Amino acid sequence: MAYLDHAATTPMLAEALDAYISAARDVGNPSSLHAAGRCARRIVEESRERIAAALNARPSEVIFTSGGTESDNLATKGIFWARRTLSLNRTRVIASAVEHHAVLDAVDWLATHEGATVDLLPVDARGWVDPAGLADLLARYRDEIAVVSVQWANNEVGTIQPVQELARLSAEAGIPFHTDAVQAVGAIPVDFAASGAAAMTVTGHKVGGPVGVGALLLGRDVPCTPLLHGGGQERDVRSGTLDTPGVAALAVAVEMSVKAQQDHAARVGALRDDLVARVREIVPDAVYNGATGDERLPGNAHFSFPGCEGDALLLLLDAQGIACSTGSACSAGVAQPSHVLLAMGADDDRARSSLRFTLGHTSTAEDVDALLAALPAAVERARRATAWKTR
Amino acid sequence: MAYLDHAATTPMLAEALDAYISAARDVGNPSSLHAAGRCARRIVEESRERIAAALNARPSEVIFTSGGTESDNLATKGIFWARRTLSLNRTRVIASAVEHHAVLDAVDWLATHEGATVDLLPVDARGWVDPAGLADLLARYRDEIAVVSVQWANNEVGTIQPVQELARLSAEAGIPFHTDAVQAVGAIPVDFAASGAAAMTVTGHKVGGPVGVGALLLGRDVPCTPLLHGGGQERDVRSGTLDTPGVAALAVAVEMSVKAQQDHAARVGALRDDLVARVREIVPDAVYNGATGDERLPGNAHFSFPGCEGDALLLLLDAQGIACSTGSACSAGVAQPSHVLLAMGADDDRARSSLRFTLGHTSTAEDVDALLAALPAAVERARRATAWKTR
Repeated sequence: MAYLDHAATTPMLAEALDAYISAARDVGNPSSLHAAGRCARRIVEESRERIAAALNARPSEVIFTSGGTESDNLATKGIFWARRTLSLNRTRVIASAVEHHAVLDAVDWLATHEGATVDLLPVDARGWVDPAGLADLLARYRDEIAVVSVQWANNEVGTIQPVQELARLSAEAGIPFHTDAVQAVGAIPVDFAASGAAAMTVTGHKVGGPVGVGALLLGRDVPCTPLLHGGGQERDVRSGTLDTPGVAALAVAVEMSVKAQQDHAARVGALRDDLVARVREIVPDAVYNGATGDERLPGNAHFSFPGCEGDALLLLLDAQGIACSTGSACSAGVAQPSHVLLAMGADDDRARSSLRFTLGHTSTAEDVDALLAALPAAVERARRATAWKTR
Repeated sequence: MAYLDHAATTPMLAEALDAYISAARDVGNPSSLHAAGRCARRIVEESRERIAAALNARPSEVIFTSGGTESDNLATKGIFWARRTLSLNRTRVIASAVEHHAVLDAVDWLATHEGATVDLLPVDARGWVDPAGLADLLARYRDEIAVVSVQWANNEVGTIQPVQELARLSAEAGIPFHTDAVQAVGAIPVDFAASGAAAMTVTGHKVGGPVGVGALLLGRDVPCTPLLHGGGQERDVRSGTLDTPGVAALAVAVEMSVKAQQDHAARVGALRDDLVARVREIVPDAVYNGATGDERLPGNAHFSFPGCEGDALLLLLDAQGIACSTGSACSAGVAQPSHVLLAMGADDDRARSSLRFTLGHTSTAEDVDALLAALPAAVERARRATAWKTR
C-alpha cells in the first residue's frame, strides 16, 4: 500500500508504542496518593515537561485532553463561556472560514445554542487568512469578542496561517487567541511562547503518537470553563482519569517529531515537490490548490482534477493500493463539497474534483512512484464516469 | 505491593494490551474511505458489536468516548440541553447525593451556568437510594425534569442501587434515566436493555481495559446534544477521531470481564469477606460503611477507623507497601470529607477517618494478609498522631 493520507492519521512511532506498553504494564491512577499512584503521576508530570519543552510552553500550560476535537471544543466553548461570564456582552466569536469542523461546528453551536455572534474571517485564493480582516473586526467589536480561533496550518490544502501576527493583534486587543496546531507540530517550527497564542491544540495521532490523546496548551491567565467536570484534574479545566500510557506515548511522539522536524520537512518536502511536478506533467489541466513555498506544509499536495469526482478518483486509486483522501477524513463520505475549497473561491465542481495527498514519516519515493503509475488510468476512468453521469 | 485500590484503576488485562498493540501497529483513520481506513473501521465496528453483546445493548447504542467522566458529562449535560431545547420548562435535573463528582459537578454546573434546578436524592445509612424519593419528585415535577442520573453502584462504599426500579419509574414518567455503571460492569450482572436505562456510562480502566477510552450507551431515541462538535462521528453525538486501538482493547476487556463476572465476584467476594472479618477482629471499633450481602459490590470494603485520619492511615499503610484510598481517587488529596459518607449520615470525624479497600482481578489472599499484618501498627500510629494534634 502507498499510504498518502498522513494528515488523516500517521502510523504510531515504535518508540511511542513502546512507551505506551511500558506504562500500561504498571498500575496506578495518577490521582491516587499511594506509591503506585505517585509512580503514575511521575510519568504524567515528566511527560508534561517534555511536551512543554518541545513546544516552548510552561509545563503548567499543558492540559491533557482526548485529542484535537476536544481541545478545539474546550478552547472555543470554554473561553467563550468564561469570558461571557466575566462580561455579559462578550458574545462574539471570530474564526477563519477554513477551520477544521471541530472549531467550525463548535462555534456554530455557540451561535445557535448560546446566542453567540460568529464572524468568519475570509481567505484568499490560497486559503490564507489576511490579518487585516482580523484587525478590522478587532477595531470594530473589541469589547464584544470572547475568543479568536485560527488554525496554524490548514488540514486540507496545507496553507500556513500568519499565526504570530493574528495572535499579536488579538493580544493587543486583550482577546485570547486560540490556534489549532495539529497539522503544524512536527511539520514546521511551532513555538507556543513565541507565537503569542493564548491557547493551542495538539494531538497525538498526527505526530506518531496515539489516537485519543492530545493537549490544549493554555496560558495560566486565560479563563476557560471546563467541558468535562468531575475530579478536578488538569488545573480544574479538564476532569477525567489521566491516561498515563497515552500521555507517555504522546510525549515521546511530540518530542521525536519536533526534534526531527527540520530533516523531516526537507525530506517530505522534496518528495512532495516531485509528486506535484509529476502530477502536473501527467495531468496538465490539474489545478494545484493552496499556497506554495514556505507558506505551505511540506507534506501536503492538493489538486483538483477537472472533470473527475474526487470520491470516484479516490476509490479508483484505492483499488490500486493508493490511500489518499478528498479532504478531511472527518468529513469523508459526506456529500458536500469542501468548505475550505469554497472559501478559497473554488466553484462546486472544482471543490468536488479535489484530492489530497499527504506525506509523513514513513513515506518513500516508491509511494510517489506508485501514485504516479496509477494516476493516469484513474483520472481517465473517473472522467469517463463523470461524463457518462452528466451527459 | 499489595494493591487494594482496584476501584481507582485496575491493571490492564494482557489480552486487552495485546489488542491495543495489534491495532496500533496498523495505520488508518476509521473515517477514511480507503482500504486502511476501512480496516480500522472494521475493527471499531466489531468492537462495538462485542461491547453491545456483552452488555445487552444494540451496537448502534454504543457511543465511544474518552471514558467515564466524559460519558457522565455527555449524558447529564447533553440530555439536559437537548430536552430543554425541545421544551423550555424542562430545567430540572435529578441525581443522587452519592454520585461520582463527574455527575455531581456536571449537574452543579448546569445549576450555576445553565439555570437548572438540581434535586439530590437522599440515601439511607447504607448509601442506598430509596426509589420512593424519586417517585415523589417525578409526581411533583414530571413536566419540568430533563434527566435523572443515579449510579449503578457507588464507587466509595460499593452500595448497589435499585437501578431497574429507578429506571422504570423514570421511563413511566417519560424521562430519560442515566446510570454510571463504571464500578458495576464485570463486578455484578449488568444488562442495559433489561435495566430500562436510557443511557449508561462504561469505562475501560475499571474493567482491565485502557484508560482514556469508554462509552456511553445511549438509546436510539434519546435526544442528546454533543459536548464535542466536529466531524460528526458516533451518530453525531460525539465527534473526534475514533481511537481504534483503544476501542479494540476496550472491547476485549469488557467482554472478558463480563464473561468472568460470576467467578470473579465469588472469588473477590470471599477475599473481601475474609478481609472484613479480620479487620473487625483486629480493630473492634472499626465501623463498616455501606450495605452488605447482595446490595454491595463484591470487591469493596470500606471502614471508618475512629480516632484516625484516613490520609494518615493511607500513608502509613503505603509505607508498608499497601495501596488503598480514602475515597474516590479523583478527590484524593482534597481536604474535604467524602460527600458520600456525609450523605449517609456520618459526621465529619467518621467521614475523615475512612479508608476504602477494593479488590480486583489480580487480588490474592496474600494481599489481604499483607494488609492485616500492617494494619494494627498503622491504626495505632494514626491514633497517636491524631490524639497529639487534637490535645
